[in-house]
Amino acid sequence: MPNPTAAMLVIGDEILSGRTKDANMHHLACALTEHGIDLCEVRVISDDGGAIQTAVNELRASFSHVFTSGGIGPTHDDITADNVARAFGAKIDVREDARAILQAHYDRQDLELNEARLRMARIPDGAVLIDNPVSGAPGFSLENVHVMAGVPKIFQAMLAGLLPTLTGGAPVLSAALDVMRGEGDIAGPLGDLADRYSALSFGSYPFQRDGLFGSNVVIRGQDKASIDQAMDELKELFAS
Amino acid sequence: MPNPTAAMLVIGDEILSGRTKDANMHHLACALTEHGIDLCEVRVISDDGGAIQTAVNELRASFSHVFTSGGIGPTHDDITADNVARAFGAKIDVREDARAILQAHYDRQDLELNEARLRMARIPDGAVLIDNPVSGAPGFSLENVHVMAGVPKIFQAMLAGLLPTLTGGAPVLSAALDVMRGEGDIAGPLGDLADRYSALSFGSYPFQRDGLFGSNVVIRGQDKASIDQAMDELKELFAS
Repeated sequence: MPNPTAAMLVIGDEILSGRTKDANMHHLACALTEHGIDLCEVRVISDDGGAIQTAVNELRASFSHVFTSGGIGPTHDDITADNVARAFGAKIDVREDARAILQAHYDRQDLELNEARLRMARIPDGAVLIDNPVSGAPGFSLENVHVMAGVPKIFQAMLAGLLPTLTGGAPVLSAALDVMRGEGDIAGPLGDLADRYSALSFGSYPFQRDGLFGSNVVIRGQDKASIDQAMDELKELFAS
Repeated sequence: MPNPTAAMLVIGDEILSGRTKDANMHHLACALTEHGIDLCEVRVISDDGGAIQTAVNELRASFSHVFTSGGIGPTHDDITADNVARAFGAKIDVREDARAILQAHYDRQDLELNEARLRMARIPDGAVLIDNPVSGAPGFSLENVHVMAGVPKIFQAMLAGLLPTLTGGAPVLSAALDVMRGEGDIAGPLGDLADRYSALSFGSYPFQRDGLFGSNVVIRGQDKASIDQAMDELKELFAS
């Protein structure tokens, strides 16, 4: 059975302007690969309501899961929750379970749950909360769309809680070999090998080391035995 | 006049599996901001012909420029050039100007321009070559789609040659202020300020430093005088 598929939606002007270097994409990619969910597409879009709604609706129709990061804080530029709700045609308002979580969080710190902070308790009808052990304000899953924070420490904590609740497939296994020849030298035989093992995927990534050209060849798939067999053939091809 | 817009298309299974951490997005974002081109969307997709064609056609219709990275090497998984050509309905074959560049490059290194390497001279009809001072094999621009390598050193060199040939707009200017209060404390007054300066964009990014919560507030726009004026008001609001 093929693995569940996923897309990621990164929301934030700060990534597109270069102010901030995204750190969540690589973390999610690794975590999903390990969990047996295939990340098929990532989109980075700006803090724009229409863009968020369009992307959410396109991606949730195409993939088993959509993971979003960014735009769920208390400030005016945090518009993700409202626009995810709009994409679904779902009502959104302050929800009592989320308000209680925030109230307890700010009580512990002797801070006021003011109007701005209360915006973080706006949760669409029908959504399931995602726990935020770092800073209180929860994310949420609405059907197959999982809305999480952009701050990497919080994104990672939310994902760690969410992922075990999602059905994964067979983890994708991989094996890699450094061949100390340029890609142009190995491309022909490597392509033939890839053709013969059509259930596996073969990638080739050039590098330079101590002034020499090499290629890192990666074989990926779900069946360990055929990866091993293909790797043996690969070594034989390029053992020089 | 509004700035030209752009999208980036990152092509490569290795990014989506987590094997490789993309490094080109942040570089392109910074370079475009400086050049006065607004990066509006980034998509990361797999080495899949259909996905490449769909994304190229959607993005080139929506934005002034599309910059792609990845998939133009000599191996079987390098399918970007052929699928960009297909997206345009353009013919693609080995082109003599590109072949001459490769021939000279490999002659200098005493390497053979074999069949695999010759694939890198496949250039769509009507495309303009993008110089590759690092490893010879050129990128190309087909109308508003600029096809470049995925290896960061090569991507950066290609972009450095390409960008001065593209018309930029007014560079986006920005000013930032660290406010040592949590976002929830500043959100109300900050939102009011943002409403009054509707030609500017206001972002707020939480941080923690020495155990204290703070917010990095960024004001962005094209008019230095109004950014300065808004920044003065911001400082007055949150001078504690």
